[in-house]
Amino acid sequence: MGDDEQKLLITFAAYTSHMYFYNQLADFTYSVFTKMGCPSDDARQATEVLIAADLRGIDSHGVARLAGYVRLWEADRINPTPDIKLVHQSPSTGVVDGDAGLGLVVAPKAMKIAINKASMVGSGWISIKNSNHFGIAGYHAAMCLEHDIIGMSMTNASPLVAPTFSTERMLGTNPIAIAIPAGQQPPFIADFATATAANGKLEILQRTGGSAPTGWVQDSEGNPSTDPGELKKGGSLLPLGSDREHSSHKGYCLGSTVDILSAVLSGANFGPWAPPFVSFLPLDPQPVGEGLGHFIGALRIDGFREVSEFKKNMDRWIERFRQSKTTQHKNVLIPGDPERAIEKERRKTGIPLNEKVVDDLQTVASRFGLQF
Amino acid sequence: MGDDEQKLLITFAAYTSHMYFYNQLADFTYSVFTKMGCPSDDARQATEVLIAADLRGIDSHGVARLAGYVRLWEADRINPTPDIKLVHQSPSTGVVDGDAGLGLVVAPKAMKIAINKASMVGSGWISIKNSNHFGIAGYHAAMCLEHDIIGMSMTNASPLVAPTFSTERMLGTNPIAIAIPAGQQPPFIADFATATAANGKLEILQRTGGSAPTGWVQDSEGNPSTDPGELKKGGSLLPLGSDREHSSHKGYCLGSTVDILSAVLSGANFGPWAPPFVSFLPLDPQPVGEGLGHFIGALRIDGFREVSEFKKNMDRWIERFRQSKTTQHKNVLIPGDPERAIEKERRKTGIPLNEKVVDDLQTVASRFGLQF
Repeated sequence: MGDDEQKLLITFAAYTSHMYFYNQLADFTYSVFTKMGCPSDDARQATEVLIAADLRGIDSHGVARLAGYVRLWEADRINPTPDIKLVHQSPSTGVVDGDAGLGLVVAPKAMKIAINKASMVGSGWISIKNSNHFGIAGYHAAMCLEHDIIGMSMTNASPLVAPTFSTERMLGTNPIAIAIPAGQQPPFIADFATATAANGKLEILQRTGGSAPTGWVQDSEGNPSTDPGELKKGGSLLPLGSDREHSSHKGYCLGSTVDILSAVLSGANFGPWAPPFVSFLPLDPQPVGEGLGHFIGALRIDGFREVSEFKKNMDRWIERFRQSKTTQHKNVLIPGDPERAIEKERRKTGIPLNEKVVDDLQTVASRFGLQF
Repeated sequence: MGDDEQKLLITFAAYTSHMYFYNQLADFTYSVFTKMGCPSDDARQATEVLIAADLRGIDSHGVARLAGYVRLWEADRINPTPDIKLVHQSPSTGVVDGDAGLGLVVAPKAMKIAINKASMVGSGWISIKNSNHFGIAGYHAAMCLEHDIIGMSMTNASPLVAPTFSTERMLGTNPIAIAIPAGQQPPFIADFATATAANGKLEILQRTGGSAPTGWVQDSEGNPSTDPGELKKGGSLLPLGSDREHSSHKGYCLGSTVDILSAVLSGANFGPWAPPFVSFLPLDPQPVGEGLGHFIGALRIDGFREVSEFKKNMDRWIERFRQSKTTQHKNVLIPGDPERAIEKERRKTGIPLNEKVVDDLQTVASRFGLQF
């Protein structure tokens, strides 16, 4: 996260009057998942994934989504007691059926299977069907770090992004996360949507009355637009690269690859059939697969070289990149740095929530007879 | 490849007066590699990879580079008779030492090892050190298709790209290729640099006197520039995304991931230490690893689901994306379409080479007592 995003966050924070500590949000979230009928281990896991987003400053993927999960559960689209299992496998690969569970629970279970496969044959790759939104991709990838394993995770999502030359929303913001251990240095953790800008940034601009930079969205006819509300009028997000001249076809390739590995390989719904996160949109009566799809990978470092040698070189990589020249009075960041900085701050001073999120959480609280 | 790129190619072709058939270029290239001392199988393999680029319209990576390989061989940086071997492995992973061989030979051998591992345990992942430029990434990934395997390949390269906020060239254009089999439809083959624009496009603009779109390059101070010759003056290519506002940090994350998987994981030179392709630039006297690095992956489809089911769904994916709405009188393309169209055309009418490339090849011919 750079200065621009920091500015957005500050704007966002200025717009809020409520600060919460990690434990307050975690205790409440755990209670909600328990009320939904999740077993306590699952409720704890789902809470940890969800609030990790708030801690790291990815506010669009944290408690702001809790009410959405509740509504999906009310619409019978989330199974609180899923039987998550491997339905097909080879020694290093497999498909997990999430049984319509919370992605927040399904994805960590799939990652544990991948890590187990990696411990046996060097790597583990799991494609997941019949799941739901899995929170921040980076959480799942980072589960590998303590095992000296490189972790990867990706997911498809509700269609918001138009392929190059198209005016139709065919792909989700389909994020990719990669977590790579280092030695003395903190790990390399990349976690990014394959669209130029995530929808959350547009939502913030709508709230603050700002306009979007060109290259983030197009209108329903495919014309460039700076209206952050364009998606409500049939417009689309643009793939990473923004336009053809700036290689949006590469962002389209990336988003497509995420969709295929997550959903075509597992048997989930792909492309424009990916189920919506919001419960008020109907499910497609003729789905092409089951639920949402994810793809998870675990690559054991000592399947390639000695871990200590790798970490020494990874430290050198990180140190060299941090020292690379800049004339903009900014430091070159290592993927994971911005989120670490925000987490450090928020663990100390708390997590800011805006009025609308607080209202939503209070509605959830009264729905279940809880306090917020 | 879209219309813009087609236009560039047409400009490029108009600039040439020479057309060659595949066999003419292949026979000559094979002779050159043989004269360099490559065993005939290796010379054939290297030729096939190299000319695949010319056939597919990726002119910067085909015979235009042959003289460069010869100069590297003359400078003793390419070993024509390498002992390419696995130096570390687990059932699904391993490191190959390329013994300073042609990447055009090393990468296909590594891919065969990966495919073999995939046939045994579901997937194979090989990181490669001590190699050289491996031609087009897409060739190696596509080797998997006939085996009903998803193929991936990537490589690091001479540093030309500045990380977000930096003015220093720290990464190569580090391409990623992914090849995914379909059924009735042709395969999905994505092959793209992780910079906004590849250097080859800037070279064409320099020849034709055009200026570059903003967002492709920056000057040595980090200012936006439209000068296609900026790299000669200390400027840099920009990561996919162009600037921070358009998420260049995501292109930086991708290029970094390619660098780490290809070089830190294998023990090759990484980041700014990646060896130059041109022989007139000296090698770093204090390298951090051996040669250039690649990363190759093979993921067996039936390790996830029945191949016939996958292919039926992949066909449906491709058909649906082809039919997605557009108002720009352009079709939505599937990755691999543009290269297939160019290959079809060039197999019929020949491969255009510009004057400078023809001159270079004639110099190579006389160096070895050959005809061109």
